[in-house]
Amino acid sequence: MQLGLVGLGRMGGNMRERLRAAGHEVVGYDRDPALSDVASLADLAGKLQAPRAVWVMVPAGVTDATIDDLAAVLDAGDIVIDGGNSRFSDDAPRAERLAGQGIGYVDVGVSGGVWGRQNGYGLMVGGADEHVERLMPVFEALKPAGEYGFVHAGPVGAGHYAKMVHNGIEYGLMHAYAEGFELLSAAELVTNVPGVIKSWREGTVVQSWLLDLLDRALDEDPELAELSGWTEDTGEGRWTVDEAVRLGVPLNVITASLFARFASRQDDSPAMKAVSALRQQFGGHTVRKP
Amino acid sequence: MQLGLVGLGRMGGNMRERLRAAGHEVVGYDRDPALSDVASLADLAGKLQAPRAVWVMVPAGVTDATIDDLAAVLDAGDIVIDGGNSRFSDDAPRAERLAGQGIGYVDVGVSGGVWGRQNGYGLMVGGADEHVERLMPVFEALKPAGEYGFVHAGPVGAGHYAKMVHNGIEYGLMHAYAEGFELLSAAELVTNVPGVIKSWREGTVVQSWLLDLLDRALDEDPELAELSGWTEDTGEGRWTVDEAVRLGVPLNVITASLFARFASRQDDSPAMKAVSALRQQFGGHTVRKP
Amino acid sequence: MQLGLVGLGRMGGNMRERLRAAGHEVVGYDRDPALSDVASLADLAGKLQAPRAVWVMVPAGVTDATIDDLAAVLDAGDIVIDGGNSRFSDDAPRAERLAGQGIGYVDVGVSGGVWGRQNGYGLMVGGADEHVERLMPVFEALKPAGEYGFVHAGPVGAGHYAKMVHNGIEYGLMHAYAEGFELLSAAELVTNVPGVIKSWREGTVVQSWLLDLLDRALDEDPELAELSGWTEDTGEGRWTVDEAVRLGVPLNVITASLFARFASRQDDSPAMKAVSALRQQFGGHTVRKP
Amino acid sequence: MQLGLVGLGRMGGNMRERLRAAGHEVVGYDRDPALSDVASLADLAGKLQAPRAVWVMVPAGVTDATIDDLAAVLDAGDIVIDGGNSRFSDDAPRAERLAGQGIGYVDVGVSGGVWGRQNGYGLMVGGADEHVERLMPVFEALKPAGEYGFVHAGPVGAGHYAKMVHNGIEYGLMHAYAEGFELLSAAELVTNVPGVIKSWREGTVVQSWLLDLLDRALDEDPELAELSGWTEDTGEGRWTVDEAVRLGVPLNVITASLFARFASRQDDSPAMKAVSALRQQFGGHTVRKP
Repeated sequence: MQLGLVGLGRMGGNMRERLRAAGHEVVGYDRDPALSDVASLADLAGKLQAPRAVWVMVPAGVTDATIDDLAAVLDAGDIVIDGGNSRFSDDAPRAERLAGQGIGYVDVGVSGGVWGRQNGYGLMVGGADEHVERLMPVFEALKPAGEYGFVHAGPVGAGHYAKMVHNGIEYGLMHAYAEGFELLSAAELVTNVPGVIKSWREGTVVQSWLLDLLDRALDEDPELAELSGWTEDTGEGRWTVDEAVRLGVPLNVITASLFARFASRQDDSPAMKAVSALRQQFGGHTVRKP
Repeated sequence: MQLGLVGLGRMGGNMRERLRAAGHEVVGYDRDPALSDVASLADLAGKLQAPRAVWVMVPAGVTDATIDDLAAVLDAGDIVIDGGNSRFSDDAPRAERLAGQGIGYVDVGVSGGVWGRQNGYGLMVGGADEHVERLMPVFEALKPAGEYGFVHAGPVGAGHYAKMVHNGIEYGLMHAYAEGFELLSAAELVTNVPGVIKSWREGTVVQSWLLDLLDRALDEDPELAELSGWTEDTGEGRWTVDEAVRLGVPLNVITASLFARFASRQDDSPAMKAVSALRQQFGGHTVRKP
Repeated sequence: MQLGLVGLGRMGGNMRERLRAAGHEVVGYDRDPALSDVASLADLAGKLQAPRAVWVMVPAGVTDATIDDLAAVLDAGDIVIDGGNSRFSDDAPRAERLAGQGIGYVDVGVSGGVWGRQNGYGLMVGGADEHVERLMPVFEALKPAGEYGFVHAGPVGAGHYAKMVHNGIEYGLMHAYAEGFELLSAAELVTNVPGVIKSWREGTVVQSWLLDLLDRALDEDPELAELSGWTEDTGEGRWTVDEAVRLGVPLNVITASLFARFASRQDDSPAMKAVSALRQQFGGHTVRKP
Repeated sequence: MQLGLVGLGRMGGNMRERLRAAGHEVVGYDRDPALSDVASLADLAGKLQAPRAVWVMVPAGVTDATIDDLAAVLDAGDIVIDGGNSRFSDDAPRAERLAGQGIGYVDVGVSGGVWGRQNGYGLMVGGADEHVERLMPVFEALKPAGEYGFVHAGPVGAGHYAKMVHNGIEYGLMHAYAEGFELLSAAELVTNVPGVIKSWREGTVVQSWLLDLLDRALDEDPELAELSGWTEDTGEGRWTVDEAVRLGVPLNVITASLFARFASRQDDSPAMKAVSALRQQFGGHTVRKP
């Protein structure tokens, strides 16, 4: 089928290729003319037969502006898909705005990172049945072959919600492996830490794709000496904890993983300075100067 | 090669089958005559040609007694393997006792649970090079085919240590998925929680064998309504935290997972009763009777 | 000085008494005529000489409506004080609305609970210098005698912000004591748990007013047998964690305390059901039925 | 009464003064002749009338050796008191060794740090009723005046156990304040962080001796700029978590506080390096070099 695709960066570019390889006709637009198939969003709309489907794959900060621009060149009966990293709570307001013009809206959480083009993307979809059904050929082409990798999770917003939880879990999984790696590295008895990690890739309860990647990383740098622990967090981890707080769900593991990222970006911990100050006050304990 | 195998319960019995299927000659002993190939440990020793290798696969509580009984019927040059859930710190004393008789000792952490017979067992091995080398045919038969599933992690104790950390990680991984499941279940937007879990099995960053098992469980019972959250912990999780404390390694995620198991077994939380009491004292807040 | 006081429940009623005892003229209004000094807000405004100061002490859910009603009967130059449990982020919008009428706005976080009437209330104040200065006689009367118990923490919103953090800390403090109480109760060696708590009230590093209250509670019920651990959380704990997430500040202790309250209200943990399901799948571990 | 006191460092020296001020006859011994009242332990024993009581106040590492030396010069009917930072599990073996000579043993957890001489020490005592009764005059002199500051917590070991839990709670309390301080410091709205802390000293739920000390520290250094967050941990925090693990008690807050100290001593987090490596592998996320 025909699909408009707005945003041809690392993710969007790879998706265009995967879709074309599956026989779909993709008209791509990007602000960078070197990447773009068309000169403008109007151009893009003109190249697609109504009812159109246009997938937006841009940084979360410009998604709303992009969708508004797009809406100006679309018609009733068209569908806009947001496959970016939007917060789920942005979806319903967007869907409502577009519905005012008779335009449908579907949100898609997309997993798979740089590996998606080859392996297929995990897709979590939110939207009305009729809209999701119309888009199934696109979803089929993007997802991995076989039974898994796609879900219609619920109404508008459910796709980004499921993706948010996916990422929250991802934080926890990564940190569990990371803690194990640190403990092994500290232990006197274990003399072959990368070998232990590698061995776990089959026959064990902890085998996973993330573990495979950790093994790859250790193949390249067995002590991770070339990396600092300074780690960004993207919005999804924070939104997951926000939701835990809103819904009263205790998420100790995922939250600890998020907080560890916060701590990784601190030169020194103000909280620990306060602890240090208290110990000095009551115990006369020696403290360190910065 | 020939192998003596002491303990033919769920794990030991399956291992005997996998080893025999690989062409090894296994002489098995179990206290239950219905499972045993021989009448006694002496009998077992008599059926094996020196230098012997005898794998002990019994509950952790009786491992030391079993090894002592076994040592009485073995000779210098033999090797004892402990593949049970021993604490790593029990290995060196055992190795020393056996070394006094000229008997070698190798510790093996075995992962794979009920799936091991079919898929192969993940093996983490501690011991001297010469002992490990002699046992390689057995390890090759037990481990999964291919590159992974086996590591000689270090000297005596390193196998159980690596297995302990493996289980600690396992606690963290399970709890990360579990928290995600709980948040999805609490969310208003997501109407198809089992479908979301199932979709993650391919194309996503969180794909893993544990996730596959969670999907299986939800296929059988989509809301896990037939289960209580009451959950045992085996020693490895506790030992992991003990080691974190001993070595000064911050293991927030793994420890939170362990503590969640402790909490799952409490009818009511004494700590929360104290919080409740305090709130009543200072705020006149309403409290609940038990 | 003259003060209007809207809301004469437990907190407001006690504050009226403390203010009158200090010689201030308080005109109180409450929807309950049995408590109220006047028949209506208009009445209240009529009894006060301009420029007026009116303190609002109502449940957080009706604060905005109350302030809007009040604004309708006030004049430019008057000041509205919100001493309730508002989220700090509600303060600036309110201040702006009132500023449109020339009415000032000051937010006050009030601590002290049921003990405040006797001991004085801890006051954390946000607002413009000129407004805060005009209200100082009221603050002086409400706060404890002496050097402490009052701070002008910053501009509008800072008072509720400081109170929010105060409550977040309070969650952590209470839970630290609560965990210690639970561990003592579980220990074989300690035969006099209430005695240990009582002894800590002087000469120790952990002495505090909260500890005094815990001792009081244990005097009444040495094993807290009359209480359940089911515990509410008010908004401040959640807002504190929200802010931690927004600002990237790792608040492991306060968040764990909040999550423990969430868990205290669950009959069973959905997350632990998932853990239980996983253990059954991979290990054949016995699980419990609900 | 007469008391032998072994170890006249900061703690022991202050205790000698407080005891003498209360009219007791203290014979002190220290390896440093400049501090010591007598030339040797034998000398000390010679100066005390039987049945003797000798209080040992030496670093935990040399307590056992000191007690053994002391036992060599004592007689049946004497009592040895250990007031140092021993692990509770060392007490019963010591008591048994001494009982073999007919010597009694009492363990005392002592709180109060550098403030104890002036304010009195919080004393948590373990031992047999008859031994504790004989020592009451000493305990009365050391403890603060009034109702609090002393408990006979249980049999031998219970004193150090109660002190261990006291210190575990102390970790949690300090960290709760520390987190609040960090959040206030990060907040845009609060312009007077030390003022907020100071205000809390009266009229609030969070008032405590530790808060007073934090205020003192901020008086000296309002941003704690002269301190690093690098913080030691003494044994009691670790033992508390060990006990939580042994007894199956979930101590999330205290453990998080301990782990934060571990983290404060790391230049970089090996765990976060592993997280960083994973993010680079799956997402092509930019990472930092060390």
